[in-house]
Amino acid sequence: MANTGDGIILGLDPGSRATGYGLVRERSGVLELVDAGVVRTTSQPDFPSRLGVIFTAVAELINRHGPAEVSVENVFVSKNAATALKLGQARGAALAACAVAGLSVHSYEPTVIKQSLVGTGRAEKSQVAFMVARVLACRETFAVDATDALAAAVCHLNQRRLTRLCGAR
Amino acid sequence: MANTGDGIILGLDPGSRATGYGLVRERSGVLELVDAGVVRTTSQPDFPSRLGVIFTAVAELINRHGPAEVSVENVFVSKNAATALKLGQARGAALAACAVAGLSVHSYEPTVIKQSLVGTGRAEKSQVAFMVARVLACRETFAVDATDALAAAVCHLNQRRLTRLCGAR
Repeated sequence: MANTGDGIILGLDPGSRATGYGLVRERSGVLELVDAGVVRTTSQPDFPSRLGVIFTAVAELINRHGPAEVSVENVFVSKNAATALKLGQARGAALAACAVAGLSVHSYEPTVIKQSLVGTGRAEKSQVAFMVARVLACRETFAVDATDALAAAVCHLNQRRLTRLCGAR
Repeated sequence: MANTGDGIILGLDPGSRATGYGLVRERSGVLELVDAGVVRTTSQPDFPSRLGVIFTAVAELINRHGPAEVSVENVFVSKNAATALKLGQARGAALAACAVAGLSVHSYEPTVIKQSLVGTGRAEKSQVAFMVARVLACRETFAVDATDALAAAVCHLNQRRLTRLCGAR
């Protein structure tokens, strides 16, 4: 591994056309943006090639930033089966890259992520995006998939902090 | 790649608990079994670890046998969405390993595989298993998932042969 980022969390929002990623570090209680973006696969000639691109991109992110853990949103499974199968394959490629690198993957329900960021599990996408930018003290706006990935990372850091606080009582 | 198996086809039957594999070679028009088995993941502590095991196992098979192409059965998508999502993730991990190795992946409808092996798209599992063993001149019986993987590999070799014959006309 090129880098050791003990406090870095890699958030992922895997999709077969676009996979969002966001890396966030906690330093002295303050959250900092490390990197964020979207891996687009639509130019690939076929579906398996997209999976290869997703795996390779996630493996490269892990190698470059050396995150300690991974956080993803749980998929809403009442989508139709064909959509779930496509989404599942993208997610499988992304999470395989994390598992091969020995990273533990934590997954959160969408409502838990919204609650953690905005304070309510019924928050709008725009509210989540606003809070992601605010928490990370960023002026830039991110692509939707990158925002979702960053939200998953921030949620995990918040949960970790809570667990630590509870443990320290 | 440790080996070059120009005529070897890797058949896969990915699943989150068991992933079947079967490698078949064509030599002078005769099909030969190279290797077959099942990667079991149920002893893994969590789901992402299973995906890591699937990816690593498929990557190792590719490295060991150097197949030229990959063949998989298309998934029957009228399964419920939760099942499709699980299956999709296993499939994504397996196919990502193929794509990362630069292999092209061919997928076939279940009826096409049955038709290719048994002569009818409505064949029973046992008939497919019987024909797989017969075509490969094997006395051993394989696990169900390995049989399905071998059937996909044999189907692809048959299709390739047909395409070649049609092209040679």
